[in-house]
Amino acid sequence: MQTPILDPVACSGLSRRNFLRIAAATSALASVPVLTESRLAFAQRPKFADPNKGIHIDANENPLGPSESARKAIAEIIPKGGRYEFPMQMELGETFAKMEGFDPSYVDVYAGSSEPLHFTVLAFTSKDKPLVIADPGYEAPMWAANISGAPIIKVPLLDPKGAATHDVKAMLAASTTPGVIYLCNPNNPTGTVTSREDVEYLVSKAPKGTVILIDEAYIHLSDAQPSLDFVKDGKDVIVLRTFSKLYGMAGIRMGFAIGRPDLLKQIATFGGQNSMPITAIAAAKASLIDTDLVPTRKKLIGEIRAENLAWLKSEGYHATPSVSNCFMLDVRRPGKEVYAAMAQKDVYIGRIWPAWPNCVRVTVGSREEMAVFQKTFKEVMSGSTAGLEPQPIHERMRETPFAYLS
Amino acid sequence: MQTPILDPVACSGLSRRNFLRIAAATSALASVPVLTESRLAFAQRPKFADPNKGIHIDANENPLGPSESARKAIAEIIPKGGRYEFPMQMELGETFAKMEGFDPSYVDVYAGSSEPLHFTVLAFTSKDKPLVIADPGYEAPMWAANISGAPIIKVPLLDPKGAATHDVKAMLAASTTPGVIYLCNPNNPTGTVTSREDVEYLVSKAPKGTVILIDEAYIHLSDAQPSLDFVKDGKDVIVLRTFSKLYGMAGIRMGFAIGRPDLLKQIATFGGQNSMPITAIAAAKASLIDTDLVPTRKKLIGEIRAENLAWLKSEGYHATPSVSNCFMLDVRRPGKEVYAAMAQKDVYIGRIWPAWPNCVRVTVGSREEMAVFQKTFKEVMSGSTAGLEPQPIHERMRETPFAYLS
Repeated sequence: MQTPILDPVACSGLSRRNFLRIAAATSALASVPVLTESRLAFAQRPKFADPNKGIHIDANENPLGPSESARKAIAEIIPKGGRYEFPMQMELGETFAKMEGFDPSYVDVYAGSSEPLHFTVLAFTSKDKPLVIADPGYEAPMWAANISGAPIIKVPLLDPKGAATHDVKAMLAASTTPGVIYLCNPNNPTGTVTSREDVEYLVSKAPKGTVILIDEAYIHLSDAQPSLDFVKDGKDVIVLRTFSKLYGMAGIRMGFAIGRPDLLKQIATFGGQNSMPITAIAAAKASLIDTDLVPTRKKLIGEIRAENLAWLKSEGYHATPSVSNCFMLDVRRPGKEVYAAMAQKDVYIGRIWPAWPNCVRVTVGSREEMAVFQKTFKEVMSGSTAGLEPQPIHERMRETPFAYLS
Repeated sequence: MQTPILDPVACSGLSRRNFLRIAAATSALASVPVLTESRLAFAQRPKFADPNKGIHIDANENPLGPSESARKAIAEIIPKGGRYEFPMQMELGETFAKMEGFDPSYVDVYAGSSEPLHFTVLAFTSKDKPLVIADPGYEAPMWAANISGAPIIKVPLLDPKGAATHDVKAMLAASTTPGVIYLCNPNNPTGTVTSREDVEYLVSKAPKGTVILIDEAYIHLSDAQPSLDFVKDGKDVIVLRTFSKLYGMAGIRMGFAIGRPDLLKQIATFGGQNSMPITAIAAAKASLIDTDLVPTRKKLIGEIRAENLAWLKSEGYHATPSVSNCFMLDVRRPGKEVYAAMAQKDVYIGRIWPAWPNCVRVTVGSREEMAVFQKTFKEVMSGSTAGLEPQPIHERMRETPFAYLS
């Protein structure tokens, strides 16, 4: 078992100077907005990168976009845009609850899963109740913990050159009083699945009152068993779902927090249940009831992923055994150099995790996008990238604590 | 000068039982979500009220819906729905900043103004830093104050049977350490404007460090002078704008918080800068640059408002001298009875403010809607409504502290 490092500076990948800056900012409750996949991706793009130009496989977006039924639903709802239509929002939660066999009180509707993620960490962590997360893992919970003042304990993935799964035993051993243990399944950025057995172990052994936050943003892309049944069984588990990934609605904004009503109420306190965009409600409803959507897209993305992982292997590169729409690619040199060289050719990959500095995350794009990726990657890797540095991050991002990412 | 009452129970209109329930819930950070106009409106609608049936003039919505250019912009952006498009979001803030002569760092983009309102009260009020608000006024800040543990000081409107404006001197006298003084201009529910002179007085006399939160949700409907210049002058002022009212985008979700960057960062900490719906960004941008939109809609809504205020006067009823899309109507009997009687005939007005129990808020709808309102109101008022009670509030609302509203 790898021993988790308890110093939040040492293990966060932040320089001490950065950490002190963040700590100072946090004490004034400043500078740390909700962190989202888009902010993390754009923080790495050069200031004037044109989203309409080049290949953008750096934000785990789905190039397919919303389904046909979702697009139609958005177009049809536009004339009602002057109305809050709160009943529609309730009906969406009820639809999902019914499909999954829940009472509707177990489902809260949010504009994506970033807010309930942020609010859950704010609600359940504190100075004495650390956040425990995997490394590399999705970074967003860290920033919320900086606001709540909670120690951040990053636990390296188990078998990093192999299965790269959550080390649930080490995560449990990392703190006797964890506030939140965050588990993204499949994991971002590795795309790897933590087994049902391990998730069960984590849920069953966690100290009473610890919230296990299971982020299933990518669950539809994999055969991993969902964790909703823990919620049904009354466990201290909150599951997050989003329509941003398989459903192709990152820009439409819809997600769910699924948990015991008493837990959901605590996170809603921080800002939950704002009126939702009716465009997103309509699109999500149409997507949910479109029973072909998940298997069709899962199959297509799975095929493109397999083709690319096979190609990379044939080229001699190791990548994580992803079952999702992203993977970590070991470039055997500083990842940031490869990131920078690719960006110069308008192919945006990334980002870099400090724990794995020679790896870069790559999102599975369309076949056309991945063809450009392969061509460009081969060109970049055939030359020297020594000393290349990513361009400065966008002006509006500089004030946020993203510097270490570049 | 009216003396503000300092007991939060006595002045909140909550029964002591309700207050204790809220206090208990708050101590566990439970049960108090972001409060929005839609939640407040729907909390009053009977459980199965069909939003597609009857006349809904209870949520200050704009029956015109999004402008033609906004509708077109939404339809056109749908294919990009799979992308976060963060640059679009920044560009929207920059567009507004440029139009108003601000540096873009003074404008943060939110999905409506409810979240920045909630977060501002969370950020700047506390046990020792009360919230000061007008009564009757928009209730949403109260619930955020319940979460932050701040005392709530409600200050009656000045000249309630006349101009019904914020009593800025009494608001200033209400606390020596106010965290937030909330001023909605024009005011919800009365639609009345507080003079520039009074707003200036409030801003200039407020204790250092007190945030003046000026909610300009309805500003476009009136000739009131905006308060953006206080922000430019570096004052502790945060101005809220929304596209939910004049712009007819309540269901599309877009708004701005405008303030010094250091203040905006503090509120963003609580959940700001989530990725925005690109549908809303596109629609807001199209609406902003459509220079005819504000004057055209302001004129139309103003005419319908004037027609209805004149009709009510001719029928012998007093209403507040609104310059907005809502007014308080004195029905000279318990407002809830009239609300209930109207709802029985599928005309939804409301809501009721405990401080003015014989008044009901009425939203200015379309001419067609207001014709039905007039006919139904005349019928209702010609008979007895004694003992009528509104139907039970919606199931999902019962757990929230809305009971006093019905």
